[in-house]
Amino acid sequence: MSDLILHEYAASGNCYKIRLTAALLGIPIERREYDIMKGETRSAAFLDGVNANGRIPVLQIGDDYLPESNAACFYLADGSALIPADRFDRADMLRWMFWEQYNHEPNVATLRFWRHFIGESALSEAQRSQIPAKEAAGNAALALMDTHLGRTPFFIGSRPTLADIALYAYTHVAEGGGFDLGAYPRLGAWLDRISALPGYKAIDA
Amino acid sequence: MSDLILHEYAASGNCYKIRLTAALLGIPIERREYDIMKGETRSAAFLDGVNANGRIPVLQIGDDYLPESNAACFYLADGSALIPADRFDRADMLRWMFWEQYNHEPNVATLRFWRHFIGESALSEAQRSQIPAKEAAGNAALALMDTHLGRTPFFIGSRPTLADIALYAYTHVAEGGGFDLGAYPRLGAWLDRISALPGYKAIDA
Repeated sequence: MSDLILHEYAASGNCYKIRLTAALLGIPIERREYDIMKGETRSAAFLDGVNANGRIPVLQIGDDYLPESNAACFYLADGSALIPADRFDRADMLRWMFWEQYNHEPNVATLRFWRHFIGESALSEAQRSQIPAKEAAGNAALALMDTHLGRTPFFIGSRPTLADIALYAYTHVAEGGGFDLGAYPRLGAWLDRISALPGYKAIDA
Repeated sequence: MSDLILHEYAASGNCYKIRLTAALLGIPIERREYDIMKGETRSAAFLDGVNANGRIPVLQIGDDYLPESNAACFYLADGSALIPADRFDRADMLRWMFWEQYNHEPNVATLRFWRHFIGESALSEAQRSQIPAKEAAGNAALALMDTHLGRTPFFIGSRPTLADIALYAYTHVAEGGGFDLGAYPRLGAWLDRISALPGYKAIDA
């Protein structure tokens, strides 16, 4: 594999997913930090050279740039046991990863960002008006995960896959967004299974 | 492959993606229609039997159910030329598919749904207040696609992949959301390349 550089903001769960995937696979990556609070991913140099979409994370592979956290995890894990060999299971893993970006991240991660990083008093009126809907949708996402984890130890059967890593990243810090993880005991047990995996690294490691 | 049943609302771009993938691959699928305007995907039977997340599309494969449009496309195309054989290109295809669900669909598709299906006068105040932000984000997504398509005939090089299908579905009907596709000529030429592909089927076919 070419040299890998992760362009990131370390506290972002989307960036952590990629580091956790690399850690579980024993793949070394260099890290380059951008302060999103200071707009460092909206500079001309970043937009032209790293990601025209102005967002981190971006995984740099030699001279190629790969945005989108779950795509970067897929690149790292391609050919490993973190992606199921079975055709249905492989698609079902992607199902949970797309669901994470559409139903989980815009609610659970956004409320964490608003409350824990920006601060509720600094939110715009438009942001504040979206809080109740995001709380409801975030809790619905956590409840759906909790129900699923009552039937299976990991999202796709008995072994961890990228679906677990993608969903772990923002779930395990959801309390920063005001979510009560104590309400979801099966989800709590799954969080413990993830953090016990060989090679696991914490978000602040 | 087991018998395939698509649980869908035919006018949805997310459902169309799956039909278009199947059409381009020559895979027959049975279709089962639900009226989302009447809440038919929130019934107990649907939530228990088809998708606990209460959404279409769901691709049924024998006795297994696969929600999330882009995951269902991946299942159908797995092993075909619609998924690149190269490791970076495969991840880059997924990059555009995740980007579609996060940056494109919630703006371009949501405005089409609000304006073309619900009708602007029937929107809630909360929905109405989100229109300017969704217009700006939707146009930013279309502009980013237009720039990319100035460099390459399809999203991943010279051949169509699932990234093209995923992005085509809501882009080609974006005018229903109030977007002016005439402002994006390279994108327009790409739409024509997609509709000229052998096996292509229209959204209302």
